[in-house]
Amino acid sequence: MEIIKPRTLSGFMELLPSKQIQFERMTEILRKTYASYGFAPLDTPVIEDAQILLAKGGGETEKQIYRFQKGDSDLALRFDLTVPLAKYVALHYNELAFPFRRFQISKVYRGERAQRGRFREFYQADIDIIGDGKLDILNEAEIPAIIYNVFRGFGLTRFQIRVNNRKILNGFYAMLGLSDKSGDIMRTVDKLDKIGAEKVKAILTEDCGLSGDQAEEILKFIAIFGSNEQVLADLEGYAGRNEVYDQGLAELKAVTANLSAFGVPEQNFAVDLTIARGLDYYTGTVYETTLLDHPEIGSVCSGGRYDNLAGYYIDKPLPGVGISIGLTRLFYVLDEQNLLNPALPTAPADALVLPMTADPAPAIALAQTLRAGGLRVQLYGEQKKFKQKMAYADKLGVPFAVLLGEDEIAAGVCSVKNMATGEQVKLPAAEAAAYIQAALAANNGPVILEQ
Amino acid sequence: MEIIKPRTLSGFMELLPSKQIQFERMTEILRKTYASYGFAPLDTPVIEDAQILLAKGGGETEKQIYRFQKGDSDLALRFDLTVPLAKYVALHYNELAFPFRRFQISKVYRGERAQRGRFREFYQADIDIIGDGKLDILNEAEIPAIIYNVFRGFGLTRFQIRVNNRKILNGFYAMLGLSDKSGDIMRTVDKLDKIGAEKVKAILTEDCGLSGDQAEEILKFIAIFGSNEQVLADLEGYAGRNEVYDQGLAELKAVTANLSAFGVPEQNFAVDLTIARGLDYYTGTVYETTLLDHPEIGSVCSGGRYDNLAGYYIDKPLPGVGISIGLTRLFYVLDEQNLLNPALPTAPADALVLPMTADPAPAIALAQTLRAGGLRVQLYGEQKKFKQKMAYADKLGVPFAVLLGEDEIAAGVCSVKNMATGEQVKLPAAEAAAYIQAALAANNGPVILEQ
Repeated sequence: MEIIKPRTLSGFMELLPSKQIQFERMTEILRKTYASYGFAPLDTPVIEDAQILLAKGGGETEKQIYRFQKGDSDLALRFDLTVPLAKYVALHYNELAFPFRRFQISKVYRGERAQRGRFREFYQADIDIIGDGKLDILNEAEIPAIIYNVFRGFGLTRFQIRVNNRKILNGFYAMLGLSDKSGDIMRTVDKLDKIGAEKVKAILTEDCGLSGDQAEEILKFIAIFGSNEQVLADLEGYAGRNEVYDQGLAELKAVTANLSAFGVPEQNFAVDLTIARGLDYYTGTVYETTLLDHPEIGSVCSGGRYDNLAGYYIDKPLPGVGISIGLTRLFYVLDEQNLLNPALPTAPADALVLPMTADPAPAIALAQTLRAGGLRVQLYGEQKKFKQKMAYADKLGVPFAVLLGEDEIAAGVCSVKNMATGEQVKLPAAEAAAYIQAALAANNGPVILEQ
Repeated sequence: MEIIKPRTLSGFMELLPSKQIQFERMTEILRKTYASYGFAPLDTPVIEDAQILLAKGGGETEKQIYRFQKGDSDLALRFDLTVPLAKYVALHYNELAFPFRRFQISKVYRGERAQRGRFREFYQADIDIIGDGKLDILNEAEIPAIIYNVFRGFGLTRFQIRVNNRKILNGFYAMLGLSDKSGDIMRTVDKLDKIGAEKVKAILTEDCGLSGDQAEEILKFIAIFGSNEQVLADLEGYAGRNEVYDQGLAELKAVTANLSAFGVPEQNFAVDLTIARGLDYYTGTVYETTLLDHPEIGSVCSGGRYDNLAGYYIDKPLPGVGISIGLTRLFYVLDEQNLLNPALPTAPADALVLPMTADPAPAIALAQTLRAGGLRVQLYGEQKKFKQKMAYADKLGVPFAVLLGEDEIAAGVCSVKNMATGEQVKLPAAEAAAYIQAALAANNGPVILEQ
């Protein structure tokens, strides 16, 4: 038979089993945390009608999208989870209860130029809350609590949720008579972290056509800094001059007011006026999340409030708020930086049962008993030498091997070998399950280890 | 703004939240059961190099596949999980421990003609055990135990795992001098359930060119029927005349020998000589699973033993055994037949917290406490009339509403309203969590209700 060299496409993450188990652990935490806030799981098709997916059209999206014909159909793979959500909500509007809260952890597709750490197929882990006509500010205030619980669930403490409000920025630019340039200004200011104040000022004056004074005013404003209380007090100084600004400030106060009731510590939250998010559709609160010891990663969880989710598909105002985590990239970076906790078991089984007798029936029954005790158990049936069996257990990384020979059967026990320590004990099957469970529970640390 | 009518492509399942929660419950049972037998989770790309995916080539696959160009790349969407597994094992051969056990619950794509109950995007839930050169028969014997636990996990008892061995059939056809026609014969005999013995005989004689006697012999053979013991005894009567036959019989005995040690009751298992599976690559044990009260659904879990998983990609014999569940179709049929247990909660939250005061802080803290007690809790922040709030709780199908007004706050309690019974009790927050937990636990029936 002619052999075709196997390969996986570049830009597509395909993990070995031990890494996959670490990845699954993160998705499990996301699912549980999102569900604990009353978000419904959603699963939309990977393929959609291209006309519908590209209703908004234009720009990078159109270039990167995977689009193709099948028969007479013009099809495309989803490039995010927001457009399919908009379609879903418009299509099922009459059947949904609003506010509609959904989470979706699914793959999306972007045919970007392949480069290290960039993926063409990647998971997004999104939540959105969609209102029908209106959506109370309390939903925007709740988002930081969810972000906080996700990253604490991962085992992190050194992260910061940064929050701003687009209305404050828009209102402030209106005060300076720069409303028509607010989009350009925000996109420029958004780069402050990356390029510094001098270059931002240069772009504002040279490319955006602002006066030096206007640029100075803006840089002074976005430099407002300190505790949440201090920042809010400084922002109060600009109040009363523009209605949009005042509304934004009231919203920002509402979002910060109940942090402690939401269980979000002050040190994990900051009002940050430099956050704007590039996307035009955000209209109120915006969020970014950074790992304090790894600023080079950029924001690991971003989102915001928007006024009109599905205007392309339905003639109803559907305001919402949502956040997204680029899970594949986050996992890639955490792994590359050796931040994934190596102490957590990455084997597919907690115990490998090794029959040492010709008749496998006693070993089969033993494996069943261990499973009934809550363990993941692999029964090893290959006819190999003992040394090879142990080498397999080692390669698999399985924490316990459980041996069953004639002696053990006669004594009503099995031999439980801790593969890490080499320690071996003889126990009845039911006790063996509890013994292994206890050892595994003692090893139950966080998914991510801060360094 | 011009409005584009939203739609989801035909042949693509997109569920409303309550149905999605039922679907997720089934995938959760599959994941847990597969993992309990030591299978590692695997996640391969949806898109693969078309040349690699179509290495085997030809037939229906090529017509149905979603294939397209992106830049210079010839790409295709996976049409099953077996070919990507073969690629994965060949590619990562040196890094894997054999036997390699993996499960994958993922979407696959087939551009079939759309019709009721047929899907173009659907989930397969597969397990495979791959050996390096050899694979012990014990693995084949374990498969019925896994199938049994999956369907028992779903809540079913009225199902039957049907097992045969291709070597028995091949050996038997060899005895009749029909080896060169065994493929055609098996494909014909496979239709026995659907078209009956008369038509099978007609096809065998008219289309396959068998004599009437030969066709009679075959029909007599596949009619062997009864308890496992009886069938094996009847099969023994043909032994000693063909080596392949004898080997198949020995394998079948090994697969049936330890059923009780594996915990599979006799009534859920049958040796059935009519089972052949159409696919050519099965070489030993084959499996089908039928719901006894719903034979019209056909097999809901099928698979078998093969000798060469990845011959197109690597010059190593990699024998294996695997099964697949067509989850999307199974779910569709169960739902259509009203077999999904309506008593299980399908709301995204266990409790809806309704703040009845201007300051939301006490309600926020209450929601946090209920979550800490293990509940999925939605905080409802909309400014609506009480009646509208209760209508929302009803539409969501949430089992409990938890009200918090000034009176409750003063008394250090919250009002817990059972939405089904209307019963309302006042409890401190921590006790409310336990109270709701207990009520939910009492409601914890099977996913599928047999009728």
